[in-house]
Amino acid sequence: MKLKDLGERKAQELIRDVLALKTIDSAEMKDDCAVVEFGDGYLLITTDMISQHTHIPEKATFWQIGWHLVAINLSDIASMGGRPMGMVVALGLPKDFEEESLRNIISGMDSCSSKYDTCILGGDTKEAKSLTLSGCAIGSVPKSEIMQRKGAKPRDIVAVTGELGKAGAAFHALKDNIDEENVIKNLLEINPRIQEGMALSKTKVVTSCMDISDGLASSIHQLSSLNEVTFNIDFNKIPISSNAKDISKKLDIPLEEPVLYMGGDYELLVTLMKDKVADAQKVLSDIGTTLTPIGEVKKDNKNILIKDGISTTLEYRGYEHFRWKA
Amino acid sequence: MKLKDLGERKAQELIRDVLALKTIDSAEMKDDCAVVEFGDGYLLITTDMISQHTHIPEKATFWQIGWHLVAINLSDIASMGGRPMGMVVALGLPKDFEEESLRNIISGMDSCSSKYDTCILGGDTKEAKSLTLSGCAIGSVPKSEIMQRKGAKPRDIVAVTGELGKAGAAFHALKDNIDEENVIKNLLEINPRIQEGMALSKTKVVTSCMDISDGLASSIHQLSSLNEVTFNIDFNKIPISSNAKDISKKLDIPLEEPVLYMGGDYELLVTLMKDKVADAQKVLSDIGTTLTPIGEVKKDNKNILIKDGISTTLEYRGYEHFRWKA
Repeated sequence: MKLKDLGERKAQELIRDVLALKTIDSAEMKDDCAVVEFGDGYLLITTDMISQHTHIPEKATFWQIGWHLVAINLSDIASMGGRPMGMVVALGLPKDFEEESLRNIISGMDSCSSKYDTCILGGDTKEAKSLTLSGCAIGSVPKSEIMQRKGAKPRDIVAVTGELGKAGAAFHALKDNIDEENVIKNLLEINPRIQEGMALSKTKVVTSCMDISDGLASSIHQLSSLNEVTFNIDFNKIPISSNAKDISKKLDIPLEEPVLYMGGDYELLVTLMKDKVADAQKVLSDIGTTLTPIGEVKKDNKNILIKDGISTTLEYRGYEHFRWKA
Repeated sequence: MKLKDLGERKAQELIRDVLALKTIDSAEMKDDCAVVEFGDGYLLITTDMISQHTHIPEKATFWQIGWHLVAINLSDIASMGGRPMGMVVALGLPKDFEEESLRNIISGMDSCSSKYDTCILGGDTKEAKSLTLSGCAIGSVPKSEIMQRKGAKPRDIVAVTGELGKAGAAFHALKDNIDEENVIKNLLEINPRIQEGMALSKTKVVTSCMDISDGLASSIHQLSSLNEVTFNIDFNKIPISSNAKDISKKLDIPLEEPVLYMGGDYELLVTLMKDKVADAQKVLSDIGTTLTPIGEVKKDNKNILIKDGISTTLEYRGYEHFRWKA
C-alpha cells in the first residue's frame, strides 16, 4: 500500500509497531515530544521537518520559513510545559540555492529562537534536490510539572489558549487567491505558546495538553482516542480570530472550516479540573493570554459539536500529510 | 553567490556568522555535537540529514538507509565520548512511497540503535517530493570526560581507530561499476565507534577528537585550522582496509584516493599525549579495536604527508557537499 492511501496517522502507527517490538512503550510515542528521564527532571526532544514543495507557500520569504521551522518545533516543547534548551537544525539545500537566501533562513531561525529565550546550537547542511529543513528542539521540565496528552478525565473542562482560525483562514485565502492582509504572516509567523505552557504546567491543574497543529477537530479526536473519553465542544464558545470571520464571509464557507478543520494556529488545547479553571485563567491572564473553556470531557460514545443549541457529531477531519491533497 | 560556488564549509561559516551576532560562541558550533550543560554533565545534541537523490546509492535497501541515518548521527555522539540517550527522526516521504519500504527503513533504524544500546524515541513524518530523512541524536558525557575538536597540542600523537579506505573504495567501485562484494554494505552499514569513544574519553589522555566523515585529509585540515597547529601524517603507518588495496589496484588509482580523500568510514581521529598512547591502545584493545598512531602534531606552516620517506603537502580535499559534483 502507498502512503497516500495509508495516511499519516496509519503510517505513524506502523512506525510505532515496528519499534515497539524491542524498544519502548509505544504510548510514549504519542506525545508531542519524546520524553527521557535525566537528573531530577524530564528531557523533552522533538523534531519537525518542512519541505518547500509540500509545506511552504510560494510567496513566503526565507526569513519566514526559518521562523516557522523553529516555531513549530518549540510549540511541541510548549505543549508539554517545557523550557526550551536549544535547537539543532538540518538544512537540505539545493546546489543552486543563493547564499543570501540561506542568510535569511538562518536570520529567521535566530529571531524566533531569540524571542523565546533559546538559540540555535548547531546543525548540519546537506545538498538536497529541493529545500528541506528539519529542526530538533530540546527542553526540560520538572517531573511533577510535565503535561502530556494522556490524562483527560470525564467532567474535566476543555479549553484553548488565544483564538482559532487565523492560519486556517489564511490558507483558504491563499488557495482561493483572495486579498487578505498578512496572509503568509498568519500562516508562517506563528507564536509558540512557550510562556503559556510553562505557566500552565506549574499550576498542576492541567490533566492533558497538546498543541493544535492539524486543527481542533483532529486534536480533539486524538485526545479522545488516547484517553478513552469523548468531548462535547460548544462551537459558540470558541474564540475565533477576526480574519477567519472575514474570510469565511468573503468566500462563503462555513466558519467551521478554518476554525475546526484546518490546522496551523499552534494554540494549546488543554483539559483541566473543573473547579480550577479560574486559577489557570488567572495565571495566563497575567502574561496577557486568554484561556477559554470550549466544552467538557464526557464518557459517551462519540465526540459532539454543539452549535446554536444543536448537537451534531464532530467530524474527524483535518490536515493529514500524504492524504491531504490525494 | 550560489551554494555550489560557496561550498559546504563556507556555508557553515555564514551560518555561524549570522547566529554569533546574538546567541553563542561560534567556536562551539565547530564540534560534531552541540553541547549544553545539564545537571552534572553535558548533553550532546547532533543532527544529520540524508537525501535519496544526493546521498544514497540506487542499489541500497531501505533497511540500509535506515541503519545509515542512525549510524552517522551516533558517530557524532561517539566522537565526543558520549553515551547515546536516544534519537528522534524526521521522515520526509513521497506520497507514492510504499508502506513496506517505510517498515524496512524503521527496521534498519531500530537495528542500528538497538546494537548501540539506544532507541528511536519518536519522530515526525511529512510529505516530501523525494525521500529525505533527518535524525537527531542526544547523548550525555560527564564534564571531565568530554572530547572535543579543540585541544590538540604540538608534540601530541595523532591516531585513528580501525582501518581507513573501506567506504572510499566502495564509492570508487560503485562509480566505476566494478565488481566488489559488499559495496553498498561498506558504504552504508557503518559502525559508529560508540564504545570506543566512551572508553577513550574515560582515559582522559585524548586532547582532541572528531569522526572522519569527509575523509582523513579533510579532518586533519579542520583540526589543524581550529587548533592552530599542523600535522605530519605518515602514510605508511595508516591502517588500510583490504578492499581499498584491492580496488585501488583494480582501478589503477593511487591508494591515497580512498584512504585520504574520500570519507565515509566514520572512524575516530584523535590526538593524544605522547607518553599515554599505550594506555589508550590498551583500553581499545580490550574491546577489540585497534588504535594506530599515524603521525604527530607540529607547529609548522603546513600539513605534511610523508610516504616512503618523501614529504609532500597534504592536500585539503575531500567530500564536501554542494561542491562535490559541481
